[in-house]
Order: sequence, then structure tokens, then C-alpha cells
Amino acid sequence: MMRQSILALNAGSSSIKFALYDLASPQVLQLVSRGTLDLGDVPTLRATAADGTALCERQLTADKPRDTAIGEMLNWVRGELGARKLICAGHRIVHGGSAFIEPVRLTPAIIEAIDRLTPLAPLHQPRSLAPVRAIAALQPDLPQVGCFDTAFHRTIEPLVRRFALPREYEGEGLRRYGFHGLSYEYIAGRLGEISPSLVAKRTIIAHLGNGASLCALRGGKSVDTTMGFSALDGLVMGTRCGAIDPGVLLYLLLERGVAAGELQTMLYERSGLLGVSGISGDMRTLEASDDPHADEAMELFAFRAAREAAALANTMGGLECLVFTAGIGERSSSIRKAICGKLTWLGVALDQHANDAHAEIISRPDSKVEIRVVATDEEKIVARHSRVAMQA
Amino acid sequence: MMRQSILALNAGSSSIKFALYDLASPQVLQLVSRGTLDLGDVPTLRATAADGTALCERQLTADKPRDTAIGEMLNWVRGELGARKLICAGHRIVHGGSAFIEPVRLTPAIIEAIDRLTPLAPLHQPRSLAPVRAIAALQPDLPQVGCFDTAFHRTIEPLVRRFALPREYEGEGLRRYGFHGLSYEYIAGRLGEISPSLVAKRTIIAHLGNGASLCALRGGKSVDTTMGFSALDGLVMGTRCGAIDPGVLLYLLLERGVAAGELQTMLYERSGLLGVSGISGDMRTLEASDDPHADEAMELFAFRAAREAAALANTMGGLECLVFTAGIGERSSSIRKAICGKLTWLGVALDQHANDAHAEIISRPDSKVEIRVVATDEEKIVARHSRVAMQA
Repeated sequence: MMRQSILALNAGSSSIKFALYDLASPQVLQLVSRGTLDLGDVPTLRATAADGTALCERQLTADKPRDTAIGEMLNWVRGELGARKLICAGHRIVHGGSAFIEPVRLTPAIIEAIDRLTPLAPLHQPRSLAPVRAIAALQPDLPQVGCFDTAFHRTIEPLVRRFALPREYEGEGLRRYGFHGLSYEYIAGRLGEISPSLVAKRTIIAHLGNGASLCALRGGKSVDTTMGFSALDGLVMGTRCGAIDPGVLLYLLLERGVAAGELQTMLYERSGLLGVSGISGDMRTLEASDDPHADEAMELFAFRAAREAAALANTMGGLECLVFTAGIGERSSSIRKAICGKLTWLGVALDQHANDAHAEIISRPDSKVEIRVVATDEEKIVARHSRVAMQA
Repeated sequence: MMRQSILALNAGSSSIKFALYDLASPQVLQLVSRGTLDLGDVPTLRATAADGTALCERQLTADKPRDTAIGEMLNWVRGELGARKLICAGHRIVHGGSAFIEPVRLTPAIIEAIDRLTPLAPLHQPRSLAPVRAIAALQPDLPQVGCFDTAFHRTIEPLVRRFALPREYEGEGLRRYGFHGLSYEYIAGRLGEISPSLVAKRTIIAHLGNGASLCALRGGKSVDTTMGFSALDGLVMGTRCGAIDPGVLLYLLLERGVAAGELQTMLYERSGLLGVSGISGDMRTLEASDDPHADEAMELFAFRAAREAAALANTMGGLECLVFTAGIGERSSSIRKAICGKLTWLGVALDQHANDAHAEIISRPDSKVEIRVVATDEEKIVARHSRVAMQA
């Protein structure tokens, strides 16, 4: 029998990550290759085999970069399939609203329903749907599955989801959803694999990438998170402001005459680490800089992350495990150190050598809070959900 | 020698509180009488002597309610002076911006400078200035002193004041100021009088009134607070939303076509306890209600207060003392209980009987956090500052 493969796609703001898996058995996914479709000025397709061997680095010259580039990526994947049959393309979709709390087969009607959620995530949802539509046009017979970043947070209680707005707005969808759910779900699963006892711990997962949020977990389920209605709330991010006094927005609108669209661009694209440093939204650039403004941006990032961690610990009634993941969380020992240093009052004790070595466990043996670094893999959880959805 | 008196005014949204003090000696203020000028549909002047004896309850019929009513209040005060001489009227002023970090004699130029801060607090600053201007017109020879609600927070570090916005905005005044400073200053002073050892404790003061905020104090100085740039941020309030995802505002503006002015009215006047309950912004009304929506509003109030308390404890690196003050904080044992119940993980242990009796100390002896109820007195701190400013 022909071996079956699943393609997982994870569309971001400036690139699409993808990973190809074989179904080694009905339950076991085996990574074949992974890659990135960089959608910058010169669209570039890069791919490596599961062992890291480079398979492809190809500049794409395209006049309609995103769709055409997705087509070229799909062609490359098909060329790699050999004797395998691609049975499904799975996608990370940013917003599932109140209705999509499980992965779903992407029929035209479902795609339209997801598209109707675009006002809830106007900058992110179209990016999620672009590869879905491109593949539907290029290979209409290929089943597709959508996996929602909001779905993992379905276990958050109504009290914690609620804004103190006139209550009719809540019925209209104005509530906290939370994001990065596929990453949190993957990490929660990994913790269970490492040790079932970890699942019982009051845990904060710090997903610190260009977008960043924290999730509080009890019994492996989300009970609170720092992103709310939108992907703008909570932590300081690469170019996003995170939590901010709503009076600031009203002041800029009413007293300074800033247009709402301009305000949105400013808060999403010119704030955060970039805004405070005036240099870059990329933590690696700031860490390499001698500019005191770069230090200020990193200090604010760590201060606000620790402050929000304490707030989430309150929702859980304690803190027993802290997990760092995603680009900054996995790679920046100095940011981990800065955040942990502000949480010593909660019994957080970092092992500096383990932290510098990016070890799996970076807490001291006497730390009341176990601190871990776990690499996230959103593509893998998308592939898993896609497999289940195809077998259903 | 004629005895000298000081009049302290505290202008709120719908009433002006006032208190008349004698300078018993150059250092000692003695309360003579206090009252409220209610600026509702039927303006009413009420006053009592220091011992609580009613002195006045008079309905005012005025076509220009606020200014005329202030004139009638001033007339009543002058009638009460007898052989005393009024040497000063002191005022609580909501916003002092970056410049006014100490009480100041209110010259015409200073009044104009304070008025130029109105864009920073468009709803509150005009209310602060109305009695200043009314008294300047009615009795131009009476010295006046302004005391700023923002000033107590001058000790907050730049890191904690900072928003993650493009940094040019910070230079233009877009930073966290904090409010309720006169109340916090009064309570900090009271704690020092009760016991000097209290001042050294990592303390959160919960000023829970119609407006509500928390202040974190180390060594008696403000190190963090929940209100930020405006009086809209932080806790759920009577009619204000408190902290909210900025994405909610952008959604209402850009996707729902809500005008910025309408949004401001909704967030300041129709949200908070009123919005969630659909019943009232007054905690006493909600406590008396059987409606489950009233319970939801009170639960959200307590949840968010405890969550923010944990965040402030993080800024201090711990929590050793928790003080409740202002209307709800002094009178609602059920709200104090609900907030403390969510902070047990930080060693907060409430003595239920003491709490029900509104005792001064309401923590159990084994509580790691000392919990107190202290009545605030913003008029007294205004009078004290006014005395000092007059003697300078």
C-alpha cells in the first residue's frame, strides 16, 4: 500500500512554515522534511530533511508573491513525495471565534464561515486563509483541515473571559479568546510525555516569539492567558504594544486627531520592542546592541512578562512549573534570566549554568518552581489534528 | 489673635466634598465641620459638625447649578466662621502632569497651566478646576492651593511608567501617572502613625470607591499602581471598564464604526459594574440584588482586583500588608472577603469575624499578610498640604 503523507502549514506575517509527515502507522507521524516559504522582498523557498540536511534553497520570482509562491512550494512538496500519497494539508488558523473549538475539515462553506471571523483578527485571519485558498484552487481534490489557535483556550471560565463592558457586547463576541493555542497544546502534550506528574502542576507556558503570550494551565488545560480578544493584548512583543491603558487610545483619537487605522498600524507594527528601542523588534538585534534604549526595551519586556506571570499565577492559585518556548523563550538565556529574576519572590530559582546551556531543566534543585525549556512545534500538532480529522 | 481656618475641597463627578479645619496651632489641624455639595438634579448642601451633629441640609435652586451652588456653599462656610479667619481654600486636583509633583499656590498662571493638562483627563480635570475658578471669582483675595492626585506616584520608576509605544510618545507625556494619590498619601501617613514598622512592609492599598485603584508601596512610597495614563485603566469600577484589550477599541472603531467619542462615553460611563450587571454601578445596590448578573459583576470586580494585586506584588517582590479603603473598601465585608479569598496562595488569611465587624485588623494572627481597614480622608491631606503651602 502506498505510504500516506500529511502536509502541515503555519502561515505567519512574513513567512509560511511547512512540514511534511509520513503516516508510519495509523497513529505515528514521521517527519520527512520541513521548510519555510519566506515572503519577503525576494520570496525564497528553503527546505531540509528530517535530519537537517538541506534539500532546497530557491529564490522565487513572482509577481503575485503569496499565491504563486504557495504554488511553487506545493510543487516542490509534490516532487518530494515520490511513492507517497499526500492525503491532507493541515493549517494553523489564527481565529476560530466561539464556534470552532475543534479542528475541522475545510469545505467551501467552512472556509466562508472562518472568513466571516476576519473582523475579529483583521491582520491575521487573511494570512491564515491565503494558503487554504491557494491550495483549494491548485489542488481542489486535496482535503484540507483547519486547526485553531483559539481552540485550546475553550476551557477558560466565563469569568476570566469577560470584559467589564455593557453585557450585550459579550453576546456579540467581545470576550477574551487567547491565541498561540497550538503551541500551548503541543507543549502541554510534551510535558505529559516527559512526566505525567508535570501535568498536575500549576504551570505557566511562556510562548515568547515575535508574537508573545503566557498561558496558565491546570491539569494540562488552559485557565487563563495574556492575549485577549486580539493578539495585541498582554506582553510586550516585537512590534506590538501589549496591554495598554485604553485611555491612551482615546487620547490619541480625541485629543491628537490620530485616525483609528493609523492607531492600529502604530500599535501593531511600530510599538513593542521596536517602539521602545527605536532600533529593532528582533530580540537578537537588541541583545547585540550597546544602545541603552535596547536595554530599556528588553527590561520592559522582562518586567511585563514577570508581572503578567504573577497575575496568571493568581488565577491558578499558585505557580509550580514555568516553561519557556518559541524563538526568544528557547534561545535567549538572558531574557529567561531577567524574567526569572523578577519571580524569585514566588520561589523561582534559576540555575545559571543550566540556563546558559539551554538545558531542558534550568531551575535549581531547591527551586519551588520547576523551570523548563521546551521547543515548540506547531506544525506537528497541526499534522496530528489533521490525521485525526482525516480518520474520523 | 483671630483663629485661622482652612477649607478643603474635593470635587468629584456628581458632588463636592468639603471640610473646614481650624489651625489649633501652627502644626495642628482641627476639624470644625464637613459637608457635601450634591450636584444632582436637585443641588443639595449638607454639613455636619466634627462630632457628627447635623448643621445644614438645604436644597439649592440654581439655574447654573455648579458655580452658583459653590457660591452658596462658600456663603454657608463664611457664616460658620464666626470669629475665625479663612486663610486658604485647598483643592484636590486630579491631574498634575509631569510638572506638578508638589502642592502649589493657585495663581492665575498656574491655573492656566493646570488647565492645559485637561486633554490628559478630559472628563476629570474640568471638575477639579470648577470650584477653583468659582472661588477665585467670588473671593479673589482668598489664597488657594492645588494638591495633585498624581503627585504621590512621582516615585514610580521610569520602567514601570513606560508604555511599549514608539518612544517619541513618552516625551510627549504618554506614560503612566496613577491617581488617587491623596488618598494613598493619607493612608501611608496613617500606617506610619499606627506603627512605624508598618511603613517598612511591602504594602498594597486598595482604594475601592466608585473609582478604584491599587497602589503598591515600599517604604511608604508608591512603586506601582493600577491606574495608568488615565483613570480608566486597571480595576473594574462603578461604570468604567478598567484594563481592556486595546484590540477591543480598534475593533469597535474600525469594524463596527463606533465613533471615538461614543467609545469614550461607553468605556467611562456604561461599563464596569453597571455594564456587567445591567443593573447599577453602585456596589450597595448589587449586594442587595438577587440577580445573577449582579453576582457576576461583583465576582469580576473581585477577580480582577486580586489579579492586579498579584501583579503589583510582583513589582514589590512580595506582599506583607493589604489595606482596604474608600467606600467599598471600608464598608463591604463581602468584597473584602472575595478579594482576600483569591489571594490565599500569597499567604492572605482573613479573620471572618473581624472582617464582618469592619475591625481595624481583619487578618488572622497566622496570616503572612497583615490586612487592615483604614478610612481615607482626602480632605484632611488637602488641608495639611494647604497649611504647609501657606506657611512656606
